[in-house]
Amino acid sequence: MKNLSQVLEEVLKKVKPSEEEYNELNKAAAEVINRVKLSVKRRKLDVHVILIGSAARNTWVAGDRDIDIFIGFDPSIPKDDLERYGIDIGKEVAGESYVIQYAEHPYVKAKINGFVFDIVPYYKVNAASLSISAVDRTPFHQQFVTANIKGREDQVRLLKQFLKGIGIYGAELKVKGFSGYLCELLIIKYESFLQLLKDVTNWKSGKFISLLREETSVDFSSPLIVVDPVDPKRNVAAAVSAESFFNFIDSAREFLSKPCIEFFFPQQMGAICAGDLRDILSKRGTKIYALSFKMLELVEDIAYPQLEKSVKSICKALSRAGFQQLRSDIYFDKGNAVLLLELIVWNLPPLYRHIGPPVECKEHARKFKDRYLNDPSVFSGPFIQNSRYIVEIPRKCLSVDAFLQRELKNVKLGRAVYRSMKNGCEVLCDEDILKIDSREYRVFLAKYFKKVQLRCK
Amino acid sequence: MKNLSQVLEEVLKKVKPSEEEYNELNKAAAEVINRVKLSVKRRKLDVHVILIGSAARNTWVAGDRDIDIFIGFDPSIPKDDLERYGIDIGKEVAGESYVIQYAEHPYVKAKINGFVFDIVPYYKVNAASLSISAVDRTPFHQQFVTANIKGREDQVRLLKQFLKGIGIYGAELKVKGFSGYLCELLIIKYESFLQLLKDVTNWKSGKFISLLREETSVDFSSPLIVVDPVDPKRNVAAAVSAESFFNFIDSAREFLSKPCIEFFFPQQMGAICAGDLRDILSKRGTKIYALSFKMLELVEDIAYPQLEKSVKSICKALSRAGFQQLRSDIYFDKGNAVLLLELIVWNLPPLYRHIGPPVECKEHARKFKDRYLNDPSVFSGPFIQNSRYIVEIPRKCLSVDAFLQRELKNVKLGRAVYRSMKNGCEVLCDEDILKIDSREYRVFLAKYFKKVQLRCK
Repeated sequence: MKNLSQVLEEVLKKVKPSEEEYNELNKAAAEVINRVKLSVKRRKLDVHVILIGSAARNTWVAGDRDIDIFIGFDPSIPKDDLERYGIDIGKEVAGESYVIQYAEHPYVKAKINGFVFDIVPYYKVNAASLSISAVDRTPFHQQFVTANIKGREDQVRLLKQFLKGIGIYGAELKVKGFSGYLCELLIIKYESFLQLLKDVTNWKSGKFISLLREETSVDFSSPLIVVDPVDPKRNVAAAVSAESFFNFIDSAREFLSKPCIEFFFPQQMGAICAGDLRDILSKRGTKIYALSFKMLELVEDIAYPQLEKSVKSICKALSRAGFQQLRSDIYFDKGNAVLLLELIVWNLPPLYRHIGPPVECKEHARKFKDRYLNDPSVFSGPFIQNSRYIVEIPRKCLSVDAFLQRELKNVKLGRAVYRSMKNGCEVLCDEDILKIDSREYRVFLAKYFKKVQLRCK
Repeated sequence: MKNLSQVLEEVLKKVKPSEEEYNELNKAAAEVINRVKLSVKRRKLDVHVILIGSAARNTWVAGDRDIDIFIGFDPSIPKDDLERYGIDIGKEVAGESYVIQYAEHPYVKAKINGFVFDIVPYYKVNAASLSISAVDRTPFHQQFVTANIKGREDQVRLLKQFLKGIGIYGAELKVKGFSGYLCELLIIKYESFLQLLKDVTNWKSGKFISLLREETSVDFSSPLIVVDPVDPKRNVAAAVSAESFFNFIDSAREFLSKPCIEFFFPQQMGAICAGDLRDILSKRGTKIYALSFKMLELVEDIAYPQLEKSVKSICKALSRAGFQQLRSDIYFDKGNAVLLLELIVWNLPPLYRHIGPPVECKEHARKFKDRYLNDPSVFSGPFIQNSRYIVEIPRKCLSVDAFLQRELKNVKLGRAVYRSMKNGCEVLCDEDILKIDSREYRVFLAKYFKKVQLRCK
């Protein structure tokens, strides 16, 4: 078994860019910046062109191909103009192959010389707290990190790779993890990856971290609070979910007790095959459903919250209808969405206990009894239990099958999910869930059934 | 349809004792009092012999055969002597056929001239609040009622019969309803049965009634509080359960909106037959279990709370094990006890979701992961959800059958129930629940399935 420093050394070899990669990236960046500057000059614009992000700060992980170039406009320029200039310049620089991405502003993403460039317009404000949109804060972040990170760039790389390995690197809503800037701040605070990790093992929900000398009084309800040194009203770790937070704590403990490289470079999970699925399902004895539908033209950051909300609503409605679940999950890739539901109970007897109004509420009591006393479909009651009327009446859905067929339309789904499902939603069950033909989906299923916190053997 | 006063008139004809019954009862009472006085004289005791209860107050319902005779001793007499004298005198008066009953003191119950006499010794204290045992208060109750009830005895009879009809007359633990004394106080307060009933329709839980002029500040948590005028620290309605309280409210509303004699004299429920049971079970589609065992030598007031506690514990344990119930009930008659359980879910898949410690608790987390990470029986996990570890592991009992066979011994049952079950407990299921051979039990089952608040058609 390798010891801790051997492991970190091995990881560093893989995550630190070679001199060749370093030169290649800087050359590519310099060229695109030049092109942007030319394009700006041609338009006679008084703007500031900068290289930003991990490429500029030398904290990127070897193999990363993303480079951000920011174009800073005076805040007096109208928003429409800023956006138009941004896109026009981007297109001109990119040539033929680009896409327009939508964040707070639209911007151009383009592949140039093997790297992926984001060309983003922003307002050059005088302080981060004066930011008009989120990207306006980024140059201040860069200033802060550049001034403070010196010499600890490799520690940032170790941290980023560790978080990638355990699946919580990135602030996007699919991941709800740690952004690159958050990684840099954590290393500035703790000085090294190991010192950070040791502290993390004792973190509790509500962990508060500030790099500022003065007392900051912020009231965030996130599990992790890292005060933005350039804008102290902001929590840099706002995107970190409870699950990501606790995953970090758990992984830190496991890694420190048994250091191994798999935490940084985990074995890729294989795709599940029909035979394995059959075995697993017959062992588990549960009932599994996959609701499969298309959700095209939606970026992940919009699709994921919608899918999460929808699966939560469906599970709640299933529980209310008496159908206990074991677990649920969501899958989204290239416009293909799947809600996965695993049931403990999927058939129920034809009657259920309907709880009526409190006896004390005279009017409601009257109506309730008028409604049920002479209803021939009533099994038992109305009778009184714990101060309320109860009737035992026919159950609407005797099976999850029936529920998914008839009641799904009454569940409060995310709006985009609702619209997408209307255009067609396939309800697959048990072994049929493999009818969705995609390797990514089969890997997702394998992970769903395995689902275990990382630990080295 | 008869109107309200016609109905009450008809009821009154049935509940008011005829002159013949009146004379017969008084003659019987006078004779036994005489016998008691002779027996007392023979022992040269300085005691007070009185006729007590509804016979003395002329508030008994026609056909009632219970007469109470109290023997009042000086409080200086030791408890043992009081009990011994009481029983000796009782036996002497009763002759051959008597039983000894156990309340706070033992006392003699004897059938004499067609009436059932309770011959009860008590301490003749100077005020109800000085009572040594509960019976010492009774003569004060009698004094108060006699001084205040005058002319409204028939109203008491109507109320008693109404409560009998709707099943909540009597303070014993099987019924948890209204005692005779409580009925008398309510009529003294409201003057007539009808005025009481009208008010009852608007009662809310925590209803407070005092017959005293001065403010009384008592803090009872019962649904109904009726301050004892002879001992204001006592709630005369302490025995009234929430269900009895709300049953009274509901029945008062129903009766006033559609007066009919069935509220006082309901149709007797017939015993269920095998064919009906088969039909009912196949319609309901639930699974029904009867746990049948002997609980001999226990009076109802001890057996009922024990059975209630036990069925509650069993239901809780079943729920924890994932087996949802529709309803449960208890039956107890002549030493035969039955716990009835009706299930919505009685089979479950071989795995369940076991919730582990919070990730924050480092030591517990360590132990939990050590326990499960390499356990080959684990289906999925450990993984993190909502700040806690979760594992999906084999379920202990896959069926209610298995649960009742193997887990019943781990459920916290009432002590007497536990001991009784150890001597043999038969677990009957579905149609087999009719193997318990008793008409009362079959009536109980019929009521269980029908279970509806009374309302005239």
